[in-house]
Amino acid sequence: MNEITVTAEQLKRLCHEIFYHLGLSEQDSTTVTDVMVMADLMGIDSHGIRRLSMIDQHIQRRYIDVKAHPNILFETPVSALVDGSRSAGQVVSVFAMQQAIDKATKTGVGLVTVRNSNHYGIAGYYSRMASDQGLIGVSMTNSLAAVVPTLGSEPMLGTNPIAFSIPSENGGFHLDMATSVVSVGKIELHQQAQQPIPWGWGLNKDGENETDPLKVLKAIFDGQSGLHPLGGYGEVHGGHKGYGLSMVVEILSAICSSGRTSNHIEEQGVSGVSHFFMAIDPKIFGDPKVIQDNLDRYLNEIRNSSKAKLHDRIYIHGEKEMEAYSCRTAEGILISEKTMKEINELCQRMNINIETYFD
Amino acid sequence: MNEITVTAEQLKRLCHEIFYHLGLSEQDSTTVTDVMVMADLMGIDSHGIRRLSMIDQHIQRRYIDVKAHPNILFETPVSALVDGSRSAGQVVSVFAMQQAIDKATKTGVGLVTVRNSNHYGIAGYYSRMASDQGLIGVSMTNSLAAVVPTLGSEPMLGTNPIAFSIPSENGGFHLDMATSVVSVGKIELHQQAQQPIPWGWGLNKDGENETDPLKVLKAIFDGQSGLHPLGGYGEVHGGHKGYGLSMVVEILSAICSSGRTSNHIEEQGVSGVSHFFMAIDPKIFGDPKVIQDNLDRYLNEIRNSSKAKLHDRIYIHGEKEMEAYSCRTAEGILISEKTMKEINELCQRMNINIETYFD
Repeated sequence: MNEITVTAEQLKRLCHEIFYHLGLSEQDSTTVTDVMVMADLMGIDSHGIRRLSMIDQHIQRRYIDVKAHPNILFETPVSALVDGSRSAGQVVSVFAMQQAIDKATKTGVGLVTVRNSNHYGIAGYYSRMASDQGLIGVSMTNSLAAVVPTLGSEPMLGTNPIAFSIPSENGGFHLDMATSVVSVGKIELHQQAQQPIPWGWGLNKDGENETDPLKVLKAIFDGQSGLHPLGGYGEVHGGHKGYGLSMVVEILSAICSSGRTSNHIEEQGVSGVSHFFMAIDPKIFGDPKVIQDNLDRYLNEIRNSSKAKLHDRIYIHGEKEMEAYSCRTAEGILISEKTMKEINELCQRMNINIETYFD
Repeated sequence: MNEITVTAEQLKRLCHEIFYHLGLSEQDSTTVTDVMVMADLMGIDSHGIRRLSMIDQHIQRRYIDVKAHPNILFETPVSALVDGSRSAGQVVSVFAMQQAIDKATKTGVGLVTVRNSNHYGIAGYYSRMASDQGLIGVSMTNSLAAVVPTLGSEPMLGTNPIAFSIPSENGGFHLDMATSVVSVGKIELHQQAQQPIPWGWGLNKDGENETDPLKVLKAIFDGQSGLHPLGGYGEVHGGHKGYGLSMVVEILSAICSSGRTSNHIEEQGVSGVSHFFMAIDPKIFGDPKVIQDNLDRYLNEIRNSSKAKLHDRIYIHGEKEMEAYSCRTAEGILISEKTMKEINELCQRMNINIETYFD
């Protein structure tokens, strides 16, 4: 298969068909598809259609129970503890964030901690669910251990992303960041390009700083070592801060939900990812319109402030994603040769005629 | 004056006397003293007694109104907007965090945003107020602009710390971190020791990466440039993430409170710092005892995990501070020659006989 450019609609129709064939309900297929294709549209390729085969694997291994549904184990007017029941992470997370939004709409704030879920895609999808409703949204998840604590050499933490969204008339502010110095996907890109990685991204199996991407990937894959937290090795550039932020994610998602921490996510043939969601209605601090105006004024001051040597633009978080979204909505989504091969194999297995979708 | 070692009690009695002479009430003097000396006890020297002369300056410049009191402008059962009324930051913040704690005790969660305050000392003091009551505590503040956005060269953000505390039987977890790659104090230490700073900490007045600490300090002082956010220069090591976290602090403290953002804190002879506090009762997610046990189990797994080459201990956030606290409670607090000189001048100005406190 060659690489190919398709429209978001074409990609969505095919993905929906694949997920439905894999056993998900109509509605759950729509949810998983929407989260995945949104990643492609926003230029976060690592979490888009490339992950289709990973979701398939998780279903084959029964990490994902395609017939299960998340449910609330315990709740208060401002909070909920959700059992993901091992359904697809996107299905669990849309359900859980909707709980947070509903509670925030009624009481001003909603906090939801989740256990027994699966990989949930892009963290920012859920924080944006809140900001689309005029609320502040927070989304966090733990993930298969790939990050070492400061001065440790064993992966005890996931790349544990944090997303934070607040709306405004002029696009708002949308942070979506791993708490590791870099994602596993970035290491893979260096490996594919046969380029060394910068010193301070990760360790080899012997717990030594390593610039050969293959040795770092192998150490992660074998559970022997991994990436550094944001701030890098040791404390000189603040690695202990990234380690601390990653811990906050573990605490709010896995500890508060009595779920599995990142170092135990895949054990005894069962997987269990933990998430945390929060929605805040800005009304609880006063006039939401004033808050949005304050935000836009400050964001403009930052955009217009002096640039570093040889640079002519300061980005606000979320702008790059919105620019990719506009571009790809108009021009389509490029699917790589490798991913097309994976899609094709899936379609053959399920007797789906790919050509009726990508014609 | 020579350097001198005093007990925490001696230091507290003298500081209380000084603040009282500066015009603060008995109670407010106790509050400011307690926050300041706690920093010394926990080994965070940059925010301890060294800051006495800064507080004095802020009072002389009328940034701090010693007779003012914070008050609530707007509240809901889960939130409050507090006007600091330009009183001392420690007084405002103890008041505001107590509001968050009271609300969390009643409804499960309390969020408080604050404007028109002053420098509040160590962020972790307030998050620990919550964890001392069995709650999860969050504390954030903006601060005089000293940090540039990614690819910017103008200081638009403060060092904007985030503190997060959760209690457990075995000491809990207590993160207290600036969202900049390093604090201004660390640059000053390199300057005093006449050592170059690592590449990636800060910029000079021309917006170029700089390893001469004096040139970075001068750029900050003159408002021409500043430190990098956590993750350093550009995006290679995640500088855009630190920039994003710093923005979250600005948004929850200055934007939500309609206060001043870091780049406007000192203007027209008036200062206005913004804070954000949150308290969460773990009960809203289930049994707090189970959550604490989950936490202790995970923290022990991290402590016992493999160490990096040449290292034999992985720290949990808050351990170093508690070890310093034990040590300094037993052995006293060392006051440097420079700080003793400042204290002495203050005491002379106010006719306080320092020898009756440090005998």
